[in-house]
Amino acid sequence: MENLQRIGISVDDRLLREFDKAIAKKGYTNRSEAVRDLIRRSLEADRLAEPETIATAAVFVVYDHHQSQLAQKLIKLQHSQLLTAISSMHIHLGHHDCLEVIILKGRVSEITKLGDSIISLKGVKLGKVNLIASD
Amino acid sequence: MENLQRIGISVDDRLLREFDKAIAKKGYTNRSEAVRDLIRRSLEADRLAEPETIATAAVFVVYDHHQSQLAQKLIKLQHSQLLTAISSMHIHLGHHDCLEVIILKGRVSEITKLGDSIISLKGVKLGKVNLIASD
Amino acid sequence: MENLQRIGISVDDRLLREFDKAIAKKGYTNRSEAVRDLIRRSLEADRLAEPETIATAAVFVVYDHHQSQLAQKLIKLQHSQLLTAISSMHIHLGHHDCLEVIILKGRVSEITKLGDSIISLKGVKLGKVNLIASD
Amino acid sequence: MENLQRIGISVDDRLLREFDKAIAKKGYTNRSEAVRDLIRRSLEADRLAEPETIATAAVFVVYDHHQSQLAQKLIKLQHSQLLTAISSMHIHLGHHDCLEVIILKGRVSEITKLGDSIISLKGVKLGKVNLIASD
Repeated sequence: MENLQRIGISVDDRLLREFDKAIAKKGYTNRSEAVRDLIRRSLEADRLAEPETIATAAVFVVYDHHQSQLAQKLIKLQHSQLLTAISSMHIHLGHHDCLEVIILKGRVSEITKLGDSIISLKGVKLGKVNLIASD
Repeated sequence: MENLQRIGISVDDRLLREFDKAIAKKGYTNRSEAVRDLIRRSLEADRLAEPETIATAAVFVVYDHHQSQLAQKLIKLQHSQLLTAISSMHIHLGHHDCLEVIILKGRVSEITKLGDSIISLKGVKLGKVNLIASD
Repeated sequence: MENLQRIGISVDDRLLREFDKAIAKKGYTNRSEAVRDLIRRSLEADRLAEPETIATAAVFVVYDHHQSQLAQKLIKLQHSQLLTAISSMHIHLGHHDCLEVIILKGRVSEITKLGDSIISLKGVKLGKVNLIASD
Repeated sequence: MENLQRIGISVDDRLLREFDKAIAKKGYTNRSEAVRDLIRRSLEADRLAEPETIATAAVFVVYDHHQSQLAQKLIKLQHSQLLTAISSMHIHLGHHDCLEVIILKGRVSEITKLGDSIISLKGVKLGKVNLIASD
Protein backbone atom coordinates (compact mmCIF):
# COMPACT_ATOMS: atom_id res chain seq x y z
CA MET A 1 0.00 0.00 0.00
CA GLU A 2 2.59 2.50 1.12
CA ASN A 3 5.65 3.07 -1.04
CA LEU A 4 8.87 2.33 0.75
CA GLN A 5 11.84 4.59 0.12
CA ARG A 6 15.42 3.72 0.92
CA ILE A 7 17.34 6.61 2.48
CA GLY A 8 21.02 6.73 3.40
CA ILE A 9 22.16 7.90 6.80
CA SER A 10 25.77 8.52 7.88
CA VAL A 11 26.51 7.39 11.40
CA ASP A 12 29.89 7.13 13.07
CA ASP A 13 31.18 3.67 13.99
CA ARG A 14 30.90 3.95 17.73
CA LEU A 15 27.34 5.30 17.77
CA LEU A 16 26.27 2.57 15.32
CA ARG A 17 27.79 -0.19 17.45
CA GLU A 18 26.04 1.08 20.56
CA PHE A 19 22.75 1.44 18.73
CA ASP A 20 22.93 -2.08 17.30
CA LYS A 21 23.61 -3.48 20.77
CA ALA A 22 20.75 -1.51 22.34
CA ILE A 23 18.15 -2.49 19.73
CA ALA A 24 19.17 -6.18 19.81
CA LYS A 25 18.55 -6.11 23.56
CA LYS A 26 15.09 -4.63 22.95
CA GLY A 27 14.22 -7.42 20.53
CA TYR A 28 14.62 -5.70 17.16
CA THR A 29 15.80 -7.95 14.37
CA ASN A 30 16.15 -5.09 11.95
CA ARG A 31 17.82 -1.67 12.08
CA SER A 32 15.31 0.02 9.74
CA GLU A 33 12.44 -0.94 12.00
CA ALA A 34 14.22 0.55 15.02
CA VAL A 35 14.95 3.85 13.22
CA ARG A 36 11.36 4.06 11.95
CA ASP A 37 10.16 3.60 15.54
CA LEU A 38 12.38 6.46 16.73
CA ILE A 39 10.99 8.67 13.96
CA ARG A 40 7.38 7.72 14.68
CA ARG A 41 7.76 8.29 18.40
CA SER A 42 9.42 11.64 17.91
CA LEU A 43 6.64 12.83 15.56
CA GLU A 44 3.98 11.56 17.96
CA ALA A 45 5.57 13.35 20.93
CA ASP A 46 5.55 16.62 18.93
CA ARG A 47 1.90 16.20 17.95
CA LEU A 48 0.73 15.27 21.45
CA ALA A 49 2.45 18.38 22.85
CA GLU A 50 0.02 20.57 20.89
CA PRO A 51 -3.19 21.35 22.88
CA GLU A 52 -5.23 21.40 19.64
CA THR A 53 -4.29 17.87 18.49
CA ILE A 54 -7.12 15.31 18.42
CA ALA A 55 -5.87 12.28 20.32
CA THR A 56 -6.93 8.97 21.75
CA ALA A 57 -6.30 8.77 25.48
CA ALA A 58 -6.69 6.36 28.34
CA VAL A 59 -8.06 7.49 31.67
CA PHE A 60 -7.24 5.25 34.64
CA VAL A 61 -9.28 5.53 37.81
CA VAL A 62 -8.62 3.43 40.89
CA TYR A 63 -11.48 3.61 43.39
CA ASP A 64 -13.31 1.76 46.10
CA HIS A 65 -16.36 0.29 44.40
CA HIS A 66 -18.34 0.49 47.63
CA GLN A 67 -18.64 4.18 46.79
CA SER A 68 -21.53 3.64 44.44
CA GLN A 69 -22.16 7.27 43.46
CA LEU A 70 -18.68 7.45 41.98
CA ALA A 71 -19.38 4.94 39.18
CA GLN A 72 -22.40 7.09 38.31
CA LYS A 73 -20.31 10.27 38.15
CA LEU A 74 -17.66 8.58 36.03
CA ILE A 75 -20.28 7.53 33.49
CA LYS A 76 -21.65 11.06 33.45
CA LEU A 77 -18.19 12.53 32.79
CA GLN A 78 -17.76 10.11 29.90
CA HIS A 79 -20.79 11.67 28.26
CA SER A 80 -19.28 15.12 28.13
CA GLN A 81 -19.96 16.89 24.88
CA LEU A 82 -16.38 17.73 24.06
CA LEU A 83 -14.95 14.25 24.26
CA THR A 84 -16.04 10.95 22.79
CA ALA A 85 -15.82 7.94 25.08
CA ILE A 86 -15.01 4.93 22.93
CA SER A 87 -14.87 2.07 25.32
CA SER A 88 -14.20 1.22 28.92
CA MET A 89 -13.00 -1.74 30.93
CA HIS A 90 -13.51 -2.57 34.60
CA ILE A 91 -10.91 -4.57 36.50
CA HIS A 92 -11.11 -5.95 40.04
CA LEU A 93 -7.84 -5.20 41.79
CA GLY A 94 -8.80 -6.52 45.22
CA HIS A 95 -11.69 -6.76 47.65
CA HIS A 96 -12.23 -3.01 47.74
CA ASP A 97 -10.39 -1.52 44.82
CA CYS A 98 -11.27 -1.57 41.20
CA LEU A 99 -9.68 0.01 38.18
CA GLU A 100 -11.68 1.62 35.44
CA VAL A 101 -9.89 2.16 32.12
CA ILE A 102 -11.71 4.57 29.85
CA ILE A 103 -10.58 5.08 26.27
CA LEU A 104 -11.69 8.36 24.76
CA LYS A 105 -10.98 10.73 21.92
CA GLY A 106 -10.80 14.50 21.77
CA ARG A 107 -8.63 17.56 21.84
CA VAL A 108 -5.54 17.24 24.05
CA SER A 109 -6.60 20.35 26.00
CA GLU A 110 -10.03 18.87 26.77
CA ILE A 111 -8.52 15.51 27.76
CA THR A 112 -6.30 17.26 30.31
CA LYS A 113 -9.29 19.10 31.76
CA LEU A 114 -11.32 15.90 32.01
CA GLY A 115 -8.38 14.24 33.78
CA ASP A 116 -8.37 16.99 36.41
CA SER A 117 -12.13 16.62 36.93
CA ILE A 118 -11.82 12.88 37.46
CA ILE A 119 -8.82 12.99 39.79
CA SER A 120 -10.60 15.56 41.95
CA LEU A 121 -13.71 13.38 42.45
CA LYS A 122 -14.20 12.29 46.04
CA GLY A 123 -13.47 8.56 46.39
CA VAL A 124 -10.95 8.37 43.56
CA LYS A 125 -7.76 6.93 45.07
CA LEU A 126 -5.69 7.41 41.98
CA GLY A 127 -6.45 8.98 38.66
CA LYS A 128 -4.22 9.25 35.63
CA VAL A 129 -4.60 10.29 32.04
CA ASN A 130 -2.28 9.02 29.33
CA LEU A 131 -2.30 10.24 25.77
CA ILE A 132 -1.92 7.25 23.48
CA ALA A 133 -1.90 8.44 19.89
CA SER A 134 -2.79 11.38 17.72
CA ASP A 135 -5.53 10.96 15.18
CA MET B 1 -12.75 1.48 58.17
CA GLU B 2 -9.75 3.79 58.22
CA ASN B 3 -9.21 6.19 61.10
CA LEU B 4 -8.99 9.77 59.99
CA GLN B 5 -6.52 12.04 61.69
CA ARG B 6 -6.58 15.80 61.63
CA ILE B 7 -3.16 17.35 61.10
CA GLY B 8 -2.24 21.05 61.11
CA ILE B 9 -0.17 22.53 58.32
CA SER B 10 1.27 26.07 58.25
CA VAL B 11 1.09 27.70 54.85
CA ASP B 12 1.76 31.31 53.99
CA ASP B 13 -1.12 33.43 52.75
CA ARG B 14 -0.05 33.82 49.17
CA LEU B 15 0.67 30.12 48.57
CA LEU B 16 -2.67 29.19 50.13
CA ARG B 17 -4.59 31.63 47.94
CA GLU B 18 -2.93 30.29 44.81
CA PHE B 19 -3.54 26.71 45.86
CA ASP B 20 -7.21 27.33 46.59
CA LYS B 21 -7.65 28.93 43.18
CA ALA B 22 -5.87 26.08 41.38
CA ILE B 23 -7.83 23.31 43.08
CA ALA B 24 -11.17 25.05 42.55
CA LYS B 25 -10.35 25.15 38.85
CA LYS B 26 -9.64 21.42 38.92
CA GLY B 27 -12.99 20.71 40.50
CA TYR B 28 -12.05 20.08 44.14
CA THR B 29 -14.67 21.17 46.67
CA ASN B 30 -12.43 20.41 49.59
CA ARG B 31 -8.85 21.35 50.47
CA SER B 32 -8.16 18.16 52.46
CA GLU B 33 -9.03 16.03 49.44
CA ALA B 34 -6.61 18.00 47.25
CA VAL B 35 -3.75 17.70 49.77
CA ARG B 36 -4.41 13.96 50.21
CA ASP B 37 -4.21 13.59 46.41
CA LEU B 38 -0.83 15.34 46.33
CA ILE B 39 0.44 13.04 49.08
CA ARG B 40 -0.88 9.90 47.38
CA ARG B 41 0.56 10.87 44.02
CA SER B 42 3.95 11.68 45.50
CA LEU B 43 4.11 8.31 47.33
CA GLU B 44 3.00 6.49 44.16
CA ALA B 45 5.66 8.21 42.05
CA ASP B 46 8.33 7.15 44.57
CA ARG B 47 7.12 3.54 44.59
CA LEU B 48 6.85 3.28 40.79
CA ALA B 49 10.42 4.57 40.45
CA GLU B 50 11.67 1.38 42.17
CA PRO B 51 12.35 -1.47 39.69
CA GLU B 52 11.32 -4.05 42.31
CA THR B 53 7.85 -2.64 42.95
CA ILE B 54 4.91 -4.83 41.89
CA ALA B 55 2.65 -2.65 39.77
CA THR B 56 -0.38 -2.70 37.53
CA ALA B 57 0.40 -1.34 34.08
CA ALA B 58 -1.33 -0.69 30.80
CA VAL B 59 0.30 -1.60 27.53
CA PHE B 60 -1.03 0.20 24.46
CA VAL B 61 -0.36 -1.20 21.03
CA VAL B 62 -1.57 0.44 17.83
CA TYR B 63 -1.27 -1.86 14.83
CA ASP B 64 -2.72 -2.71 11.47
CA HIS B 65 -5.03 -5.64 12.11
CA HIS B 66 -4.41 -6.97 8.60
CA GLN B 67 -1.11 -8.18 10.04
CA SER B 68 -2.62 -11.31 11.53
CA GLN B 69 0.54 -12.82 12.97
CA LEU B 70 0.93 -9.82 15.23
CA ALA B 71 -2.23 -10.51 17.25
CA GLN B 72 -0.85 -13.99 17.82
CA LYS B 73 2.50 -12.69 19.04
CA LEU B 74 0.82 -10.20 21.36
CA ILE B 75 -1.20 -12.98 22.98
CA LYS B 76 1.96 -15.04 23.40
CA LEU B 77 3.77 -12.13 25.08
CA GLN B 78 0.86 -11.78 27.49
CA HIS B 79 1.48 -15.33 28.67
CA SER B 80 5.03 -14.59 29.77
CA GLN B 81 5.86 -16.24 33.06
CA LEU B 82 7.07 -13.14 34.82
CA LEU B 83 3.98 -11.02 34.32
CA THR B 84 0.29 -11.66 34.83
CA ALA B 85 -2.01 -10.39 32.12
CA ILE B 86 -5.25 -9.40 33.79
CA SER B 87 -7.45 -8.23 30.98
CA SER B 88 -7.33 -6.74 27.54
CA MET B 89 -9.53 -4.61 25.33
CA HIS B 90 -9.55 -4.22 21.58
CA ILE B 91 -10.63 -0.93 19.98
CA HIS B 92 -11.16 -0.16 16.30
CA LEU B 93 -9.52 3.17 15.52
CA GLY B 94 -10.16 3.16 11.77
CA HIS B 95 -10.28 0.90 8.75
CA HIS B 96 -6.75 -0.37 9.24
CA ASP B 97 -5.67 0.52 12.74
CA CYS B 98 -6.70 -1.01 15.97
CA LEU B 99 -5.65 -0.37 19.54
CA GLU B 100 -5.06 -3.16 22.00
CA VAL B 101 -5.01 -2.17 25.67
CA ILE B 102 -3.51 -4.85 27.89
CA ILE B 103 -3.64 -4.55 31.66
CA LEU B 104 -1.02 -6.58 33.45
CA LYS B 105 0.71 -6.94 36.78
CA GLY B 106 4.32 -7.59 37.68
CA ARG B 107 7.62 -6.11 38.71
CA VAL B 108 8.31 -2.64 37.25
CA SER B 109 11.58 -3.92 35.73
CA GLU B 110 9.77 -6.77 33.93
CA ILE B 111 7.03 -4.45 32.70
CA THR B 112 9.65 -2.19 31.11
CA LYS B 113 11.27 -5.16 29.36
CA LEU B 114 7.92 -6.41 28.06
CA GLY B 115 7.21 -2.93 26.74
CA ASP B 116 10.46 -2.96 24.75
CA SER B 117 9.62 -6.40 23.31
CA ILE B 118 6.20 -5.23 22.18
CA ILE B 119 7.32 -1.94 20.67
CA SER B 120 10.00 -3.78 18.67
CA LEU B 121 7.52 -6.21 17.07
CA LYS B 122 7.23 -5.75 13.33
CA GLY B 123 3.86 -4.23 12.47
CA VAL B 124 3.44 -2.30 15.71
CA LYS B 125 2.91 1.33 14.72
CA LEU B 126 2.98 2.65 18.22
CA GLY B 127 3.61 0.97 21.53
CA LYS B 128 3.53 2.46 24.98
CA VAL B 129 3.64 1.20 28.52
CA ASN B 130 2.18 3.16 31.38
CA LEU B 131 2.52 2.25 35.01
CA ILE B 132 -0.81 2.79 36.71
CA ALA B 133 -0.50 1.87 40.36
CA SER B 134 1.70 -0.01 42.78
CA ASP B 135 0.24 -3.02 44.53
CA MET C 1 6.99 39.12 55.87
CA GLU C 2 4.38 36.64 54.77
CA ASN C 3 1.53 35.77 57.10
CA LEU C 4 1.42 32.10 57.97
CA GLN C 5 -1.95 30.43 58.25
CA ARG C 6 -2.62 27.17 60.00
CA ILE C 7 -4.95 24.91 58.05
CA GLY C 8 -6.36 21.55 59.15
CA ILE C 9 -6.17 18.54 56.83
CA SER C 10 -7.82 15.16 57.44
CA VAL C 11 -5.70 12.22 56.40
CA ASP C 12 -6.30 8.58 57.15
CA ASP C 13 -3.87 6.76 59.46
CA ARG C 14 -2.23 4.55 56.89
CA LEU C 15 -1.56 7.31 54.35
CA LEU C 16 -0.13 9.52 57.10
CA ARG C 17 2.22 6.78 58.34
CA GLU C 18 3.51 6.16 54.82
CA PHE C 19 3.93 9.88 54.18
CA ASP C 20 5.84 10.42 57.43
CA LYS C 21 8.17 7.55 56.56
CA ALA C 22 8.77 8.83 53.03
CA ILE C 23 9.52 12.42 54.04
CA ALA C 24 11.85 11.35 56.85
CA LYS C 25 13.82 9.35 54.28
CA LYS C 26 14.04 12.47 52.10
CA GLY C 27 15.41 14.50 54.98
CA TYR C 28 12.38 16.56 56.04
CA THR C 29 12.24 17.33 59.73
CA ASN C 30 8.81 18.85 59.49
CA ARG C 31 5.52 17.73 57.94
CA SER C 32 4.33 21.27 57.08
CA GLU C 33 7.45 21.87 55.01
CA ALA C 34 6.88 18.66 53.03
CA VAL C 35 3.23 19.51 52.32
CA ARG C 36 4.14 23.06 51.29
CA ASP C 37 6.71 21.59 48.87
CA LEU C 38 4.06 19.34 47.31
CA ILE C 39 1.75 22.33 46.90
CA ARG C 40 4.50 24.52 45.40
CA ARG C 41 5.61 21.84 42.98
CA SER C 42 2.07 21.13 41.84
CA LEU C 43 1.41 24.84 41.20
CA GLU C 44 4.72 25.17 39.36
CA ALA C 45 3.98 22.17 37.14
CA ASP C 46 0.61 23.70 36.21
CA ARG C 47 2.18 27.07 35.39
CA LEU C 48 5.04 25.60 33.35
CA ALA C 49 2.55 23.59 31.29
CA GLU C 50 1.14 26.86 29.90
CA PRO C 51 2.97 28.04 26.72
CA GLU C 52 2.39 31.70 27.71
CA THR C 53 4.08 31.50 31.11
CA ILE C 54 7.31 33.49 31.52
CA ALA C 55 9.88 31.10 32.94
CA THR C 56 13.55 30.74 33.77
CA ALA C 57 15.10 27.81 31.94
CA ALA C 58 18.44 26.06 31.62
CA VAL C 59 19.75 24.99 28.24
CA PHE C 60 22.42 22.29 28.30
CA VAL C 61 24.62 21.77 25.29
CA VAL C 62 27.33 19.12 25.10
CA TYR C 63 29.67 19.66 22.17
CA ASP C 64 33.18 19.13 20.91
CA HIS C 65 34.96 22.44 21.47
CA HIS C 66 37.20 21.82 18.48
CA GLN C 67 34.18 22.86 16.45
CA SER C 68 34.83 26.54 16.88
CA GLN C 69 31.96 27.87 14.79
CA LEU C 70 29.51 26.24 17.17
CA ALA C 71 30.45 28.41 20.16
CA GLN C 72 29.81 31.39 17.88
CA LYS C 73 26.36 30.15 16.87
CA LEU C 74 25.43 29.42 20.47
CA ILE C 75 26.27 32.96 21.47
CA LYS C 76 24.22 34.28 18.57
CA LEU C 77 21.21 32.21 19.59
CA GLN C 78 21.49 33.62 23.11
CA HIS C 79 20.98 37.09 21.71
CA SER C 80 17.60 36.27 20.19
CA GLN C 81 15.13 39.05 20.69
CA LEU C 82 12.42 36.93 22.27
CA LEU C 83 14.46 35.51 25.09
CA THR C 84 16.80 37.04 27.64
CA ALA C 85 20.02 35.19 28.31
CA ILE C 86 20.90 35.77 31.95
CA SER C 87 24.11 33.90 32.44
CA SER C 88 26.08 31.00 31.16
CA MET C 89 28.70 28.59 32.40
CA HIS C 90 31.23 26.51 30.54
CA ILE C 91 32.41 23.17 31.92
CA HIS C 92 35.16 20.92 30.60
CA LEU C 93 33.88 17.36 30.56
CA GLY C 94 36.90 15.76 28.94
CA HIS C 95 39.53 16.32 26.32
CA HIS C 96 37.01 16.91 23.56
CA ASP C 97 33.68 17.54 25.17
CA CYS C 98 32.48 20.57 26.95
CA LEU C 99 29.14 21.45 28.49
CA GLU C 100 27.60 24.87 28.16
CA VAL C 101 24.84 25.71 30.62
CA ILE C 102 22.81 28.74 29.56
CA ILE C 103 20.24 30.26 31.91
CA LEU C 104 17.59 32.31 30.15
CA LYS C 105 14.17 33.80 30.63
CA GLY C 106 11.20 34.03 28.35
CA ARG C 107 7.89 32.56 27.29
CA VAL C 108 7.70 28.76 27.62
CA SER C 109 6.74 28.49 23.94
CA GLU C 110 9.84 30.47 22.85
CA ILE C 111 12.10 28.46 25.15
CA THR C 112 10.92 25.24 23.50
CA LYS C 113 11.62 26.66 20.05
CA LEU C 114 15.10 27.79 21.04
CA GLY C 115 15.78 24.33 22.43
CA ASP C 116 14.90 22.78 19.06
CA SER C 117 17.19 25.24 17.25
CA ILE C 118 20.11 24.40 19.51
CA ILE C 119 19.69 20.63 19.43
CA SER C 120 19.59 20.73 15.64
CA LEU C 121 22.94 22.61 15.33
CA LYS C 122 25.63 20.54 13.65
CA GLY C 123 28.25 19.52 16.22
CA VAL C 124 25.90 19.46 19.20
CA LYS C 125 26.19 15.98 20.70
CA LEU C 126 23.46 16.46 23.21
CA GLY C 127 21.08 19.30 23.81
CA LYS C 128 18.44 19.63 26.50
CA VAL C 129 16.18 22.35 27.79
CA ASN C 130 14.79 22.29 31.31
CA LEU C 131 12.26 24.69 32.66
CA ILE C 132 13.28 25.71 36.15
CA ALA C 133 10.74 28.12 37.54
CA SER C 134 7.95 30.42 36.51
CA ASP C 135 8.37 34.12 37.08
CA MET D 1 38.66 10.88 13.97
CA GLU D 2 35.58 8.70 13.94
CA ASN D 3 34.84 6.59 10.89
CA LEU D 4 31.53 7.41 9.32
CA GLN D 5 29.46 4.54 7.98
CA ARG D 6 26.60 4.91 5.54
CA ILE D 7 23.59 2.76 6.43
CA GLY D 8 20.40 2.33 4.43
CA ILE D 9 17.01 2.67 6.10
CA SER D 10 13.63 1.89 4.49
CA VAL D 11 10.92 4.34 5.40
CA ASP D 12 7.48 4.64 3.85
CA ASP D 13 6.68 7.76 1.87
CA ARG D 14 4.23 9.32 4.25
CA LEU D 15 6.38 8.91 7.35
CA LEU D 16 9.36 10.35 5.49
CA ARG D 17 7.41 13.41 4.33
CA GLU D 18 6.21 14.10 7.86
CA PHE D 19 9.68 13.63 9.28
CA ASP D 20 11.26 15.97 6.73
CA LYS D 21 8.68 18.63 7.55
CA ALA D 22 9.19 18.27 11.30
CA ILE D 23 12.99 18.46 11.19
CA ALA D 24 12.98 21.45 8.83
CA LYS D 25 10.81 23.26 11.36
CA LYS D 26 13.32 22.42 14.10
CA GLY D 27 16.17 23.85 12.05
CA TYR D 28 17.88 20.73 10.71
CA THR D 29 19.43 21.14 7.28
CA ASN D 30 20.30 17.48 7.06
CA ARG D 31 18.35 14.26 7.57
CA SER D 32 21.36 12.23 8.77
CA GLU D 33 21.98 14.71 11.57
CA ALA D 34 18.34 14.44 12.71
CA VAL D 35 18.40 10.63 12.71
CA ARG D 36 21.72 10.60 14.59
CA ASP D 37 20.16 12.89 17.21
CA LEU D 38 17.22 10.53 17.66
CA ILE D 39 19.63 7.62 18.10
CA ARG D 40 21.82 9.52 20.57
CA ARG D 41 18.89 10.69 22.62
CA SER D 42 17.38 7.22 22.76
CA LEU D 43 20.69 5.69 23.93
CA GLU D 44 21.12 8.44 26.50
CA ALA D 45 17.61 7.94 27.88
CA ASP D 46 18.32 4.22 28.30
CA ARG D 47 21.61 4.88 30.08
CA LEU D 48 20.21 7.55 32.40
CA ALA D 49 17.41 5.17 33.42
CA GLU D 50 20.00 2.88 35.05
CA PRO D 51 20.69 3.80 38.71
CA GLU D 52 24.33 2.67 38.35
CA THR D 53 25.18 4.97 35.44
CA ILE D 54 27.71 7.73 36.15
CA ALA D 55 26.17 10.96 34.94
CA THR D 56 26.59 14.70 34.93
CA ALA D 57 23.60 16.46 36.48
CA ALA D 58 22.40 19.95 37.22
CA VAL D 59 20.81 20.81 40.53
CA PHE D 60 18.67 23.96 40.59
CA VAL D 61 17.83 25.59 43.86
CA VAL D 62 15.69 28.70 44.17
CA TYR D 63 15.91 30.28 47.62
CA ASP D 64 15.70 33.52 49.51
CA HIS D 65 19.27 34.64 49.99
CA HIS D 66 18.37 36.36 53.25
CA GLN D 67 18.43 32.87 54.71
CA SER D 68 22.17 32.82 55.15
CA GLN D 69 22.50 29.37 56.73
CA LEU D 70 21.08 27.83 53.58
CA ALA D 71 24.01 28.83 51.35
CA GLN D 72 26.25 27.17 53.94
CA LYS D 73 24.26 23.94 53.88
CA LEU D 74 24.23 23.88 50.09
CA ILE D 75 28.01 24.13 50.00
CA LYS D 76 28.27 21.33 52.56
CA LEU D 77 26.02 19.08 50.49
CA GLN D 78 28.22 19.73 47.46
CA HIS D 79 31.12 18.24 49.35
CA SER D 80 29.44 14.90 49.86
CA GLN D 81 31.81 12.01 49.35
CA LEU D 82 29.72 10.17 46.81
CA LEU D 83 29.32 12.96 44.32
CA THR D 84 31.76 15.37 42.73
CA ALA D 85 30.65 18.96 42.44
CA ILE D 86 32.19 20.39 39.30
CA SER D 87 31.03 23.95 39.20
CA SER D 88 28.27 26.21 40.33
CA MET D 89 26.67 29.43 39.24
CA HIS D 90 24.67 31.94 41.25
CA ILE D 91 21.96 34.03 39.59
CA HIS D 92 19.94 36.89 41.05
CA LEU D 93 16.30 36.41 40.11
CA GLY D 94 14.90 39.33 42.06
CA HIS D 95 15.25 41.25 45.31
CA HIS D 96 14.81 38.16 47.46
CA ASP D 97 15.23 35.15 45.27
CA CYS D 98 18.35 33.68 43.84
CA LEU D 99 18.99 30.60 41.78
CA GLU D 100 21.95 28.35 42.39
CA VAL D 101 22.87 25.99 39.57
CA ILE D 102 25.21 23.22 40.69
CA ILE D 103 26.79 20.88 38.15
CA LEU D 104 27.93 17.59 39.62
CA LYS D 105 28.90 14.10 38.64
CA GLY D 106 28.14 10.73 40.19
CA ARG D 107 25.95 7.67 40.17
CA VAL D 108 22.35 8.35 39.09
CA SER D 109 21.08 6.79 42.34
CA GLU D 110 23.24 9.14 44.43
CA ILE D 111 22.20 12.16 42.40
CA THR D 112 18.54 11.39 43.09
CA LYS D 113 19.23 11.11 46.82
CA LEU D 114 21.12 14.40 46.88
CA GLY D 115 18.20 16.03 45.06
CA ASP D 116 15.81 14.89 47.78
CA SER D 117 18.15 16.21 50.50
CA ILE D 118 18.32 19.62 48.84
CA ILE D 119 14.63 19.99 48.11
CA SER D 120 13.83 19.15 51.73
CA LEU D 121 16.10 21.90 53.15
CA LYS D 122 14.17 24.61 54.98
CA GLY D 123 14.22 27.81 52.95
CA VAL D 124 14.46 26.14 49.53
CA LYS D 125 11.50 27.43 47.51
CA LEU D 126 12.08 25.17 44.57
CA GLY D 127 14.56 22.43 43.98
CA LYS D 128 15.05 20.32 40.90
CA VAL D 129 17.59 17.84 39.66
CA ASN D 130 18.11 17.20 35.97
CA LEU D 131 20.32 14.51 34.55
CA ILE D 132 22.25 15.95 31.61
CA ALA D 133 24.49 13.26 30.17
CA SER D 134 26.02 9.91 30.96
CA ASP D 135 29.76 9.63 31.22
